[in-house]
Amino acid sequence: MTDSTRRIGTPVVDSGGATMHDRIERAHHAFELSRRATPADRQRWLEAIADGLDADAEELITLARHESRLPEARLRGELIRTAFQLRLLGAEAKRGEPLDPTIDHADRDWGMGPRPDIRRVNQPLGVVAVFGASNFPFAFSVIGGDSAAALAAGCSVVHKAHSAHPRLARRTAETVIEALRLARAPDGLFALVSGFRIGEALVEHPLVQAVAFTGSTRGGRALFDRIAGRPQPIPFFGELGSTNPVFVAPAAWAARREEIVRGFLASVTGSVGQLCTKPGFLIVPRDPSIAAPLTSAGADLTAGEMLTPHLRDAFRTSVADFHRLPASRVLLDAQSRLDDAEAATLFAITAEALLAEPEILQREMFGPASVVVEYSHPGQLIELAKAVDGQLTAGIHADAEDDVHDLARVLAEKAGRLVWNAWPTGVTVSYAQQHGGPYPATTASGTTSVGTGAVRRFLRPVAYQGFPETELPEPLRESNPWGLRRRIDGEWVDP
Amino acid sequence: MTDSTRRIGTPVVDSGGATMHDRIERAHHAFELSRRATPADRQRWLEAIADGLDADAEELITLARHESRLPEARLRGELIRTAFQLRLLGAEAKRGEPLDPTIDHADRDWGMGPRPDIRRVNQPLGVVAVFGASNFPFAFSVIGGDSAAALAAGCSVVHKAHSAHPRLARRTAETVIEALRLARAPDGLFALVSGFRIGEALVEHPLVQAVAFTGSTRGGRALFDRIAGRPQPIPFFGELGSTNPVFVAPAAWAARREEIVRGFLASVTGSVGQLCTKPGFLIVPRDPSIAAPLTSAGADLTAGEMLTPHLRDAFRTSVADFHRLPASRVLLDAQSRLDDAEAATLFAITAEALLAEPEILQREMFGPASVVVEYSHPGQLIELAKAVDGQLTAGIHADAEDDVHDLARVLAEKAGRLVWNAWPTGVTVSYAQQHGGPYPATTASGTTSVGTGAVRRFLRPVAYQGFPETELPEPLRESNPWGLRRRIDGEWVDP
Repeated sequence: MTDSTRRIGTPVVDSGGATMHDRIERAHHAFELSRRATPADRQRWLEAIADGLDADAEELITLARHESRLPEARLRGELIRTAFQLRLLGAEAKRGEPLDPTIDHADRDWGMGPRPDIRRVNQPLGVVAVFGASNFPFAFSVIGGDSAAALAAGCSVVHKAHSAHPRLARRTAETVIEALRLARAPDGLFALVSGFRIGEALVEHPLVQAVAFTGSTRGGRALFDRIAGRPQPIPFFGELGSTNPVFVAPAAWAARREEIVRGFLASVTGSVGQLCTKPGFLIVPRDPSIAAPLTSAGADLTAGEMLTPHLRDAFRTSVADFHRLPASRVLLDAQSRLDDAEAATLFAITAEALLAEPEILQREMFGPASVVVEYSHPGQLIELAKAVDGQLTAGIHADAEDDVHDLARVLAEKAGRLVWNAWPTGVTVSYAQQHGGPYPATTASGTTSVGTGAVRRFLRPVAYQGFPETELPEPLRESNPWGLRRRIDGEWVDP
Repeated sequence: MTDSTRRIGTPVVDSGGATMHDRIERAHHAFELSRRATPADRQRWLEAIADGLDADAEELITLARHESRLPEARLRGELIRTAFQLRLLGAEAKRGEPLDPTIDHADRDWGMGPRPDIRRVNQPLGVVAVFGASNFPFAFSVIGGDSAAALAAGCSVVHKAHSAHPRLARRTAETVIEALRLARAPDGLFALVSGFRIGEALVEHPLVQAVAFTGSTRGGRALFDRIAGRPQPIPFFGELGSTNPVFVAPAAWAARREEIVRGFLASVTGSVGQLCTKPGFLIVPRDPSIAAPLTSAGADLTAGEMLTPHLRDAFRTSVADFHRLPASRVLLDAQSRLDDAEAATLFAITAEALLAEPEILQREMFGPASVVVEYSHPGQLIELAKAVDGQLTAGIHADAEDDVHDLARVLAEKAGRLVWNAWPTGVTVSYAQQHGGPYPATTASGTTSVGTGAVRRFLRPVAYQGFPETELPEPLRESNPWGLRRRIDGEWVDP
């Protein structure tokens, strides 16, 4: 590294005054040790971190409340989720599921000509840079899904702290590092750095082999371009922006308009609208009396303070911009009743206006605002679905009489997760979860940032041809010392 | 599309004078039909193409001999490989292996809070642009691995013909299109386009959702930059360049120097050195008598004409550049004995010189030339391994007394495939094959372009939350109509 890189380092957490370059070198050394560890070791490390979070919960939640303004119940739930995620990914690592061990024995009669013995296993990428988000100070921050998945894969992590919760980030990193130390994980396996320019230098460091990011489309695209411009481009798993449109079919709307509106408003205003899966567009049949259920449901809504002044200002600007659209009209404006807290703002727009200006469908208002789109005939549902860009989620509300088969098919081309008669906010951590979608929702639509599948993002297949048993990695040895389920000569074999 | 894009279209294969834009629109329509097809249908299409290649083999081989100058036996073997590959990937598609169907039933007691019913399956990306290579006019060209994998995934393919074999490309496309027509595949599922500017426009077309490329580092990087600059960046599976270093440990060298040199020269000169896995560096103990086995083995070598005048000129330039390196000396120069055919050129360089200028390790001479690196102590094997960039392959020759455990570990960080006591050329198509590695070997090190794993490059996971049975894609239905092996609530379940 050049001297200029050394100068911009702002050491945090450890006392040695290490520069970012030193941290990355240590992280690489830790990776070299972690990749030799057994999956059982890695599970132990992740469990130790989860235990550490549990033990330090009160202090962490107090700091999080102070820095994020999020309500205590939400933060408690998020911390439970974060520890659960570490344990689930640890268990997944232990059973070797992400390794995909595949063995082809030598075969003289292989159809294209004799085949040598060849065996493949997934291996960790190296040092991973993780950029945390402000809106989930636990679950998508210091030791959130990206860090957990990278550690489960056998990588080391250098986490760039989000400026919205610097004290919490530092305190969480202390918990993580202490837990790893007690569990005898390699020194330097996890490190925290902070500062905008540090973030830029981090993604350009030659030892960094992958980057995970959750944030805005603008910030994510800037990182994407920076990483694409590296002499050696590396995988960039960026979650950028999503407006999560929800399509309501005619019969569903006729049958339960009030219920849909109530659910919609709750989903729009939960966490003061600061969720990447907040429904930004609700697409419903034209309904002259739509104001009635909105006003009745809207009366119950509470307002809330946003995470940071920066997000508040950006939100207010995006709402003001939407106000200025000639095609928009205001359906609900709780905003003006309050001073320092944001309440729900709902716009209305016609399907015809949106189809004439489909780029409006990508306008994300990050906060408690959303847009009700009124369609004049059901065919416009498909037209609108075709007009949206890549999304994290898309929703369908339909009853038995509604024919939404084609609509679902179109939306499956656009989104990572389709939600039926429910709301996109609330993302469970499980085996089948998919949190990701085509650009701009993410920069790597083939992967997920939530659920056990996330571990695979930080792995890369390596094949071994003609290796003797003792020189093979354990998952590929004939003796199967780790007891893994493997694909052998094309067939899956249980241990 | 703009008018300027329409102007640069040069229609080939079909008689309708379609522009590239029209072809892509048709390909997208075909994709919409293909994604609804069953895996059994897709297998039938791939089988039909393989049968078509078999039926037209003589004509195709005659054209290939004429345009590629490759020997007939090699071309026959390559065509067998190409048909085999189509059938293997078709069978893989039929068994649903690449779909990864995963089902999490609703669970009120899920550790982080109640879990909804959520199910995930991989779905095809859309229209895939494939750029063929000149050096495998069948296996990495019109209907080579990339096209076969994309079709097996359920995508449609627009293939950009390589200018080195235009007539063969056109004739192969006719075989493919006719086979697909007879098999009643969707019209437009496969199309051929040609021309340099067409290639540029192709990767920028909004309906193109992935690009696969095999070629030079320069050409690949230019495409990479163009795709990264799209308003909507898409996955780019580029195979760029690789020097495939082979590391020979001391005991192996002492025991079988002649055998190693013979194998090395055969691997360097096969197909006139025009293989992406040709060993570009052979790293051996310093040996004052190394010229003896080289001269004796080199005497048997035949020379050959290169694929194109462009490749020949580029090869000669790269060899001349290596000549000019102060640290290099010539070990074998069969070059001068021949006029219009290239024979083996071998250079020698010391490990010390390479470690002082490690960028030399990335110098690919695409043709029958290679470099013998002489090390003065075994520790330099690891130092050199650490100095190489991303590779498709890395080789190790070792005997029982050689300790190459650490060497293999370092090389696993650098390459997609490690080869033990054998040569990297010759890439079998199987379940465990991994043809890919960190940049610059490829732009997507998590994926492979050869073997059944290649199908996954053209798929993307989509989750369905709370969907009723009839609205779910078949692989996710409780009734499992396609009889797939699935992961259900974390456990793999056979049908």
